[in-house]
Amino acid sequence: MTFDEGLMAPVTVGHDDTVTDAACLDALVTAEVALARAYAAVGAAPAEKVDALASALGWADRGALCRGHGIDVRALAEASVAGGNPVIPLVGLLAERVPESARAWVHRGATSQDVVDTALMLVAREASARVLASLREADTALAAFAAAHRDEVAAARTLTQHAVPTTVGLRAATWRRGVRRAIARLSAVELPAQLGGAGGTLASFVEIAGASAAAALPAAFAAELGLSTPDAPWHTTRWPVTELGDALVQTIDALGVIAADVATLSRTEIGELAEGSGGGSSAMPQKQNPAASVLVRSAALRAPQLGATLHLAAALAVDERPDGAWHAEWPTLRELLRLALGASANAASLVAGLRVDTDAVAANLALTNGLIVAERLSIVLAPLLGKARVSAIVAAAGRGEPLDGLVRAAVAEAGADLDIDALLDPANYTGLAARLTATPTKDAE
Amino acid sequence: MTFDEGLMAPVTVGHDDTVTDAACLDALVTAEVALARAYAAVGAAPAEKVDALASALGWADRGALCRGHGIDVRALAEASVAGGNPVIPLVGLLAERVPESARAWVHRGATSQDVVDTALMLVAREASARVLASLREADTALAAFAAAHRDEVAAARTLTQHAVPTTVGLRAATWRRGVRRAIARLSAVELPAQLGGAGGTLASFVEIAGASAAAALPAAFAAELGLSTPDAPWHTTRWPVTELGDALVQTIDALGVIAADVATLSRTEIGELAEGSGGGSSAMPQKQNPAASVLVRSAALRAPQLGATLHLAAALAVDERPDGAWHAEWPTLRELLRLALGASANAASLVAGLRVDTDAVAANLALTNGLIVAERLSIVLAPLLGKARVSAIVAAAGRGEPLDGLVRAAVAEAGADLDIDALLDPANYTGLAARLTATPTKDAE
Amino acid sequence: MTFDEGLMAPVTVGHDDTVTDAACLDALVTAEVALARAYAAVGAAPAEKVDALASALGWADRGALCRGHGIDVRALAEASVAGGNPVIPLVGLLAERVPESARAWVHRGATSQDVVDTALMLVAREASARVLASLREADTALAAFAAAHRDEVAAARTLTQHAVPTTVGLRAATWRRGVRRAIARLSAVELPAQLGGAGGTLASFVEIAGASAAAALPAAFAAELGLSTPDAPWHTTRWPVTELGDALVQTIDALGVIAADVATLSRTEIGELAEGSGGGSSAMPQKQNPAASVLVRSAALRAPQLGATLHLAAALAVDERPDGAWHAEWPTLRELLRLALGASANAASLVAGLRVDTDAVAANLALTNGLIVAERLSIVLAPLLGKARVSAIVAAAGRGEPLDGLVRAAVAEAGADLDIDALLDPANYTGLAARLTATPTKDAE
Amino acid sequence: MTFDEGLMAPVTVGHDDTVTDAACLDALVTAEVALARAYAAVGAAPAEKVDALASALGWADRGALCRGHGIDVRALAEASVAGGNPVIPLVGLLAERVPESARAWVHRGATSQDVVDTALMLVAREASARVLASLREADTALAAFAAAHRDEVAAARTLTQHAVPTTVGLRAATWRRGVRRAIARLSAVELPAQLGGAGGTLASFVEIAGASAAAALPAAFAAELGLSTPDAPWHTTRWPVTELGDALVQTIDALGVIAADVATLSRTEIGELAEGSGGGSSAMPQKQNPAASVLVRSAALRAPQLGATLHLAAALAVDERPDGAWHAEWPTLRELLRLALGASANAASLVAGLRVDTDAVAANLALTNGLIVAERLSIVLAPLLGKARVSAIVAAAGRGEPLDGLVRAAVAEAGADLDIDALLDPANYTGLAARLTATPTKDAE
Repeated sequence: MTFDEGLMAPVTVGHDDTVTDAACLDALVTAEVALARAYAAVGAAPAEKVDALASALGWADRGALCRGHGIDVRALAEASVAGGNPVIPLVGLLAERVPESARAWVHRGATSQDVVDTALMLVAREASARVLASLREADTALAAFAAAHRDEVAAARTLTQHAVPTTVGLRAATWRRGVRRAIARLSAVELPAQLGGAGGTLASFVEIAGASAAAALPAAFAAELGLSTPDAPWHTTRWPVTELGDALVQTIDALGVIAADVATLSRTEIGELAEGSGGGSSAMPQKQNPAASVLVRSAALRAPQLGATLHLAAALAVDERPDGAWHAEWPTLRELLRLALGASANAASLVAGLRVDTDAVAANLALTNGLIVAERLSIVLAPLLGKARVSAIVAAAGRGEPLDGLVRAAVAEAGADLDIDALLDPANYTGLAARLTATPTKDAE
Repeated sequence: MTFDEGLMAPVTVGHDDTVTDAACLDALVTAEVALARAYAAVGAAPAEKVDALASALGWADRGALCRGHGIDVRALAEASVAGGNPVIPLVGLLAERVPESARAWVHRGATSQDVVDTALMLVAREASARVLASLREADTALAAFAAAHRDEVAAARTLTQHAVPTTVGLRAATWRRGVRRAIARLSAVELPAQLGGAGGTLASFVEIAGASAAAALPAAFAAELGLSTPDAPWHTTRWPVTELGDALVQTIDALGVIAADVATLSRTEIGELAEGSGGGSSAMPQKQNPAASVLVRSAALRAPQLGATLHLAAALAVDERPDGAWHAEWPTLRELLRLALGASANAASLVAGLRVDTDAVAANLALTNGLIVAERLSIVLAPLLGKARVSAIVAAAGRGEPLDGLVRAAVAEAGADLDIDALLDPANYTGLAARLTATPTKDAE
Repeated sequence: MTFDEGLMAPVTVGHDDTVTDAACLDALVTAEVALARAYAAVGAAPAEKVDALASALGWADRGALCRGHGIDVRALAEASVAGGNPVIPLVGLLAERVPESARAWVHRGATSQDVVDTALMLVAREASARVLASLREADTALAAFAAAHRDEVAAARTLTQHAVPTTVGLRAATWRRGVRRAIARLSAVELPAQLGGAGGTLASFVEIAGASAAAALPAAFAAELGLSTPDAPWHTTRWPVTELGDALVQTIDALGVIAADVATLSRTEIGELAEGSGGGSSAMPQKQNPAASVLVRSAALRAPQLGATLHLAAALAVDERPDGAWHAEWPTLRELLRLALGASANAASLVAGLRVDTDAVAANLALTNGLIVAERLSIVLAPLLGKARVSAIVAAAGRGEPLDGLVRAAVAEAGADLDIDALLDPANYTGLAARLTATPTKDAE
Repeated sequence: MTFDEGLMAPVTVGHDDTVTDAACLDALVTAEVALARAYAAVGAAPAEKVDALASALGWADRGALCRGHGIDVRALAEASVAGGNPVIPLVGLLAERVPESARAWVHRGATSQDVVDTALMLVAREASARVLASLREADTALAAFAAAHRDEVAAARTLTQHAVPTTVGLRAATWRRGVRRAIARLSAVELPAQLGGAGGTLASFVEIAGASAAAALPAAFAAELGLSTPDAPWHTTRWPVTELGDALVQTIDALGVIAADVATLSRTEIGELAEGSGGGSSAMPQKQNPAASVLVRSAALRAPQLGATLHLAAALAVDERPDGAWHAEWPTLRELLRLALGASANAASLVAGLRVDTDAVAANLALTNGLIVAERLSIVLAPLLGKARVSAIVAAAGRGEPLDGLVRAAVAEAGADLDIDALLDPANYTGLAARLTATPTKDAE
């Protein structure tokens, strides 16, 4: 079995350590050890046996994943097919590694779903921490970039056409708002441990440890793992998966917007932005492709449909454990985590290296013969000259006549006293751009 | 133009008043009036002119939609094609209806997106309120149902097979947890007004009203509408749309789980549940179809992909207004609102009328010749008899030998003193089901 | 009940007559009449009774939909909720309209799914014919456009950057290839009638008409409707729905590519293309938005997820009629048809009116200081000058030195005899563009 | 870099050799060698140099992939990030391995997309062949199964409820129709080579080989690879990818239906079907889970959204090579291929081992107190007794009165002479089931 996908998935290459098969296996083992430790914590298992078990399986510390258990991940994957999940064969492999006296505490009272769901939450926690670190890097870089370009006037474009002036800084501040909202959402995602036993009643745990110890077990289990304590078993109440998925997709959306803008604004004809280190070409030596934007964008086109699969799985969570919907979540969530890891890491370096071509920004701003302030002319001149005259001026400027002269003539004719230079200067029509760029947004801390 | 879809979309029939074309038009008009009123509120427009405008367009009160403006929705729809959105022709129609002296305040300084986005948030608010009302009805009905069936022991099923005992009440309590989480999420969704002007800088508002009045305008605008004040224009930062979409999909997921379980448990062979009023058949007079479950399920299979479209649109929000992604949101969000309205209304009546066939529940529980407590036997008897012996007992019972006799013989042989009747009684192996059923969950208020 | 969505779905406004509620109702009635006529055709029903039935319900001719049956579509929609589909109440309404003597032949032996599926195939046929007509219009317009611009050299762009020369004509020919493939696929879609009776065995028809007449009934039914004869009932074998859906999505994909290119190439900075009649702006009088492209693009972002829903429904077609998956198809397929109708109509007029700005094309081609032929220089000069020298020339030209002089000097230095003007002329480096533009493609007829 | 996903994706474990990173790399190398060979084939390159190149890179034969080239796939993956695709670094690695004299023919005139697209078509061909082999196995097994159970009467279920009789054989024949349609579609998918050069004009090839050799090059290239000759470069005309994707999704849909039915019919309460070797449970020794069905179903819930991503990428194929949409295809197509491989292999063994519990089938059929033939009673008795009387009989039987006695009494009362036993026997109301089971379907060969 040689299952992999590093080649031809460049957006995620190098950013997946936390969601590899090895990491998932470590998380499964960690969940199993934490269960034994939780029994000890609630007084239902002898501490020394549990310690022996934990030590044999590579337990290091709360919040860390077990390593060094020596289980072969490929063999485990192959063994997982018959029963449809890896926990069934894993339990046997763990038991072999644990001293006989402690063996009874392996997977005691648990069901496969307790272990798989908990392990995925552990994987999600590790991966999310990385994603958040990249997002915070991007946030910091964008704050600096926005501040540096706060007053650099540029054309705002709507439906692909120049509209009115904006600033390079405000555009970056807008990206940053999306990033900060994503940070806020992803930070707030609740990652609960799962512990319900075969039917979600915790009956096995009650049988083993008595009702009151069993009732305390989920919190103890969660504490060992650094996950949140579940309200109740969530075998078929899958919001922990979909809320995580939604936050990841939202994260990638926010990065996708940056990528879309950078790719667009680095077009040969526009040239306002350039990635720090563009990608080369196998055929055209002169090209500097916006490679990071392209990669982030490829993730943004894929993530929403993965999120949809998680929701479908949630909606089809029939019975006390569903017949396929649950299994559909595992690879989907992992791929979504990988995309978030790759997109956020690529985006962080993209924004850190982003360069502005000030001349191109200015040249583009001037492309419409001054009409970038046409809206302003309507507002200011229509009361003075009438709408029809303003439209005529705009139309004439659209045909290439000098806007300055047209406006001056009309204003003089109307006997008004206006500073025409100031009126036509795009820098005077950026509204609250500077304020919106500077204002700290509320969403991320 | 006769665009509609009531026929052959039964899940939503009768539950869409808040998202019809008429409602959307009212919301667009309301946004336009609120803008004029906001100018007055910040002292930038004369109150009497604004009042004349508001009154001509059917303004009633804060938080209510304008009606009675007399605009023909179909003609407006047709006129919206050329420019790609309905606001362009709407502005002209509004101006015609407003006294000449107030006409300058129609759509003043605004861009189409300000009005469309704000109107969709208004529509979403009205529709969400309905959805939440249905969810709360369902929550209440489920609380009563769960309490009434708290101690009714039933088979828990995993991967379609009987696993261990649970209770009818716990199953309902689990559904309720999903519903309550959805209530919590949907209630928490932020619905901001949109006000940025053509390029998101508010430059037009600054030009018209001065910087400090312009800075106050978004909050005043939001206050008129009962929407939240935006942090900044969100023309291309689309989390208000995707977070709403995610909450709606999550809502439908939670209802989908109920529908999946009811449809399954009302199968002819299972018969544990029945909808209060099943659907008939055009050919088979004896059938009682779980029609509400089927309808809710049809919504649950559609909603996730609509949510994905909203995320895609968010990720592709290029420039200062995107070239198609924004337009893709409108019908998608409306359909998602409709599905949430229909699914929640149908689910509320479904759970209100849900009936349990106690005999069927008991008969099913007994189907596996007592082996519904096999897990318990492993836990209790393995230490006594050894794992191999327990497996042999389970296997023999699986072949039809009376479990009671098998266990009694083995326990006697081992010289142990156990209450076999109690051991084999599924009612004694429901763990914390009663507690989990009764515990108020934290998520909804 | 006021269910509609003309407003705020501009891409489909005015292009949905064939999929309205009224059209769907006509199709349902047509299917019911065709069944009675099929009984007559196979000799199982008296022709005069069937004629009376057909005439009472507005039957006109084979291949035409029944109109004038007088059934109120909104009331029917409301009545369809209880049973989950419109056929149950429809049968009663039809019986009322039919002479008593013919009443027995209304819906005789049929199941709701026979009628709904068949009606949707009728709707799909009518709508597909319109879509194909629009696609053929687009094909013709593109052929003329491609021919007219066959030799107009333009920059080819890859990953947003200028790469090598191409022609305006080849770009259009490439769009056309996508359109023609879509025509071929959509034309080839099989639209079978559905006739299986309650469980897909045709048992009711055998009971009513005998085995051999029953065996002939599906073909007779299909013949009355102008649909293809089903191999067997396809109640749970949903490829007729998904293959149709896939062809529609593929159609919209092909149009989406045109829209993406037109939107991009009509950007203010690029300006190579312009829609015949651009959309206006509510705030900026000078703007000419690529409104049709924007609308087509909005459809292209939505269609794939609707297609996915059809596949999901197909994959979940459990039992002899599924519990929700089938119901999820109806509105999804209708929306997909509407999007195809709207996108194809908008695209047809878009390409018919598309204008090229020859000056902009030429100016853009020259933007890279001649390096649009850099690949050619590598090929031609590297054997002469060595790779390093060519790279140095390209780098120097990239910094702004005149390419012509650089090349001339190096070639002279190498003592070679080359027509440098010809070498550097982009028109001489368009490869097979003219041939690829002219070659008739094989896919559509 | 340790990128993998064998663990926790059980449906695909062991079925992915043809789409691993190693296989993709082999395909990339094969495409590169085939290009050189194509030059030789059209007389543009010296055969001996090309042979040296081919031999150095592990070329074996037409239709086989190059192996033994010794390139490290992980290093290549890492090197692919900078430029966003693996071909850029691959070209350098290939050149190192090729004798100096042949080096000029490595990647000559090609663009990355030529190589990547062609390689993915090769991967798709290898994988599709495996999928088709599994589908044909399933087809054969289903034919035998359907024949063996042609006359085994069973309850047909619609909307979860018993409807009328059908047969176990017809159900399998219906599954088979889906499988055969999928075989037909997947077999018909066109897998063209890609060869366009940097801008899709083949200009580089014309420069290198002259126009007429260049025009012949794509066919020669395709011939070396056993792919079909492209009509024209399809860099931005992505139907080869979406049509393949659609066929794969349709394949998985068809298998999903089998899985849905098997999972449902093997429910503890239904028990009509059982997988040959059910999956075990980590906690409940007695359970036999329908593990293969669960795995296939997990694929069926994921595939449609992956197909949607391919369509989105197609619709967004802007310029002469798109800025992210193309990159989104690669991992998506690979995952879809993997799902098809895994689902088809699992389904093939599922149907090969499928067991029927004849007693359960019969017991279920009898569950509705004979009312499984209620439709028949309506047809036969209504003319005799009137509709009201038949309804009363059905209602009484629904309450538990013996149907036989009710019918006998009413028929006697009406003075009719009917074989009541025959009338009530479900085996006499299976319509054309036997014929539909036996008829060879047309779709697959």
